[in-house]
Amino acid sequence: MDEMSHKGTSRRGFLRAGLAAGGALTALGTAARASGPDPLITEVQPWASQLGDGVDVAPYGMPIRFEEHVIRRNVEWLTAETASSINFTPLHELDGIITPNGLCFERHHGGAAEIAKSDWRLMINGLVETPLVFTFADLMRFPRVNKIHFLECAANGGMEWAGAQLNGCQFTHGMIHNVMYTGVMLKDILAEAGVKTEGKWLLAEGADASGMTRSIPMEKALDDCMIAFKMNGEMLRKEQGYPARLVVPGWEGNMWIKWIRRLEVGDQPWEQREETSKYTDTMEDGRSRRWTWVMDAKSVITNPSPQAPITHGPGRTVITGVAWSGRGTIPRVDVTLNGGKTWFPARMDGPSLDKSMHRFYYEFDWDGSELLLQSRAVDSTGYVQPTKNQLRAFRGVNSVYHNNGIATWWVKPDGSAENVEIS
Amino acid sequence: MDEMSHKGTSRRGFLRAGLAAGGALTALGTAARASGPDPLITEVQPWASQLGDGVDVAPYGMPIRFEEHVIRRNVEWLTAETASSINFTPLHELDGIITPNGLCFERHHGGAAEIAKSDWRLMINGLVETPLVFTFADLMRFPRVNKIHFLECAANGGMEWAGAQLNGCQFTHGMIHNVMYTGVMLKDILAEAGVKTEGKWLLAEGADASGMTRSIPMEKALDDCMIAFKMNGEMLRKEQGYPARLVVPGWEGNMWIKWIRRLEVGDQPWEQREETSKYTDTMEDGRSRRWTWVMDAKSVITNPSPQAPITHGPGRTVITGVAWSGRGTIPRVDVTLNGGKTWFPARMDGPSLDKSMHRFYYEFDWDGSELLLQSRAVDSTGYVQPTKNQLRAFRGVNSVYHNNGIATWWVKPDGSAENVEIS
Repeated sequence: MDEMSHKGTSRRGFLRAGLAAGGALTALGTAARASGPDPLITEVQPWASQLGDGVDVAPYGMPIRFEEHVIRRNVEWLTAETASSINFTPLHELDGIITPNGLCFERHHGGAAEIAKSDWRLMINGLVETPLVFTFADLMRFPRVNKIHFLECAANGGMEWAGAQLNGCQFTHGMIHNVMYTGVMLKDILAEAGVKTEGKWLLAEGADASGMTRSIPMEKALDDCMIAFKMNGEMLRKEQGYPARLVVPGWEGNMWIKWIRRLEVGDQPWEQREETSKYTDTMEDGRSRRWTWVMDAKSVITNPSPQAPITHGPGRTVITGVAWSGRGTIPRVDVTLNGGKTWFPARMDGPSLDKSMHRFYYEFDWDGSELLLQSRAVDSTGYVQPTKNQLRAFRGVNSVYHNNGIATWWVKPDGSAENVEIS
Repeated sequence: MDEMSHKGTSRRGFLRAGLAAGGALTALGTAARASGPDPLITEVQPWASQLGDGVDVAPYGMPIRFEEHVIRRNVEWLTAETASSINFTPLHELDGIITPNGLCFERHHGGAAEIAKSDWRLMINGLVETPLVFTFADLMRFPRVNKIHFLECAANGGMEWAGAQLNGCQFTHGMIHNVMYTGVMLKDILAEAGVKTEGKWLLAEGADASGMTRSIPMEKALDDCMIAFKMNGEMLRKEQGYPARLVVPGWEGNMWIKWIRRLEVGDQPWEQREETSKYTDTMEDGRSRRWTWVMDAKSVITNPSPQAPITHGPGRTVITGVAWSGRGTIPRVDVTLNGGKTWFPARMDGPSLDKSMHRFYYEFDWDGSELLLQSRAVDSTGYVQPTKNQLRAFRGVNSVYHNNGIATWWVKPDGSAENVEIS
């Protein structure tokens, strides 16, 4: 490992490592074809000699058949019912920071409710001057905003507290997605009803069969929360709360009430099931942390990873991953190849937006020896992503929520990767 | 029109205009239901009393059935073959700045070619030190970048030069989409081959049956062009050039060669068919402008518009639209309600990114009288979007390309809108 060259690799070194040089009409870069002409270059191919599909094939377009393996995946044994289960985002197949709507993490507590716009109502009641009921058409009269935010389940990585290792970042980190939301500011909706001075809390309630309810402090509600109706430009998907959901930027996904139907203003938190027996972190002594709403800074290397081995052999290699923080932006991610003995700053790329996923890269020449890959995010508050052992020393292992510890992929000489823990 | 109140509308005025106030458990905001209790509020609904769909319904998720009308649309009479036709983005159904991949404008010249990653090759030849052929695996070893850019066809709005009016911004302005591309910088690929001093131009060639070829000046190639393989996080769609396409930010879509297979370096432009007989603008005197690559600043109001009438009657109304420029960002859009007699600055919202779509809004109290709606973009160079008549005075009406003139929607008292021209 110590012999490996890093960021300083010269352009010539890159060429030698990643690409063989040669004459035109000869396939380069893969040893197997270096011995003779490549028919893909020298011969006319069928796609160059006959018409392809016309534009009317798919009025709503779908991925090409070669990408059929790129899907959300459920862990079948996780729940008894798919209506109360989880579909994980295939992070290892994605790049950039936008999650396409068809691949977004979903979690239901009573299945995905189907509610037409015309059947949707939003009531505001409780400690307000004027209780109100909004139709979807009413909602469309309010000023709109557009924000790219991550939504992460509090239980993302939950099985790793006690050392269980699922093989693949889709399962260890895939309870997250990152899209552009369009909606109205919650503060504008609340202002219509007129929050009374003693109104310090909000109960948000969903219209689905789970009757999901969460208490939200008024300070957050009036800050950056939204009632969203679009994601990545188009209407919310059914499984994301069509036609309208709550967006609580940076806070755990369970609070982003889908199929939102009611906002009650009160003077104290409600202590409902989903904020007492669930979504609280049980400590070593049996007591629970409460109000652990903010998702702290976290990162994961998406490639290579157990589902996405290195297949091109030694030479120039791109490591990439994502990082996010519920407290702001991610100015920095460090990457280690040797389990934390030495760290190198990753290259951040793409828009750096508040409470949004960030994309990082680390390019290096792989000598084919084994790697212990880790990434460590630092957010705009200066907070540094901890190790799992640091978290366990503080909280024990009773919790299933808020595991933002550093993950480790053991990359073997054949390029395959395994989810491991190192002390 | 002059009596209408604008941005200064008070919050109380907003309430009166947009929402009726009343007691809890009473539907407000729509006159029809004001007389009695709303069963959608007072009665338990089926979606609240039985389980919805589970997470395994759609491993690759699709829109809810209520949104089945939101699709790309072809104008059937435009071309003889769908393999050489156009699907238009439904701009009037979208918000924010991201176009979902399933709704992205597509234009083919020989149909959508189907090429597996393993069958893809990219050759660099001509005036280079070392001719090279890249496999897809080779491409994945280069440093990646992520950029949100618009892709607009040069013919977007082309039928309006001579005054023909299609009814709907999907057809007048829908030859555009805006996604996050992930790819490698073209300059990095070219550096591997080593461009010779006399290499001033690049010929980009596609692998599909149309044999699409375009000349690109080396200065642009080395500036911000990319070889992209992902859009909005996932692999390019087949119809967008899977597995790799050229991205030429801010320049006409025809140059963004799909299914890219070859880059030839030369010392002068090639003057191929698609840059001489097509994609040049024929002037009044029969001569053609050439090298009209940059897409100048443009905007359109997407709501209301002929496909998206105002359905909620008078009162608080949100006007929204998109603007973009191939020369930079859009710091400002103005909106007029009376055909250009008086203009008001729109509110820009969402990320302002180089050569990307921008979203604007204008909120006002509609008194129910007719409107002549227009938007006018100003880009970061100070360029102001012209009227169609200003363009015609300079170029005549022989052209079908590069119409970035101001569009007008005539909104009638019933809320319907029509595409009109005003002198």
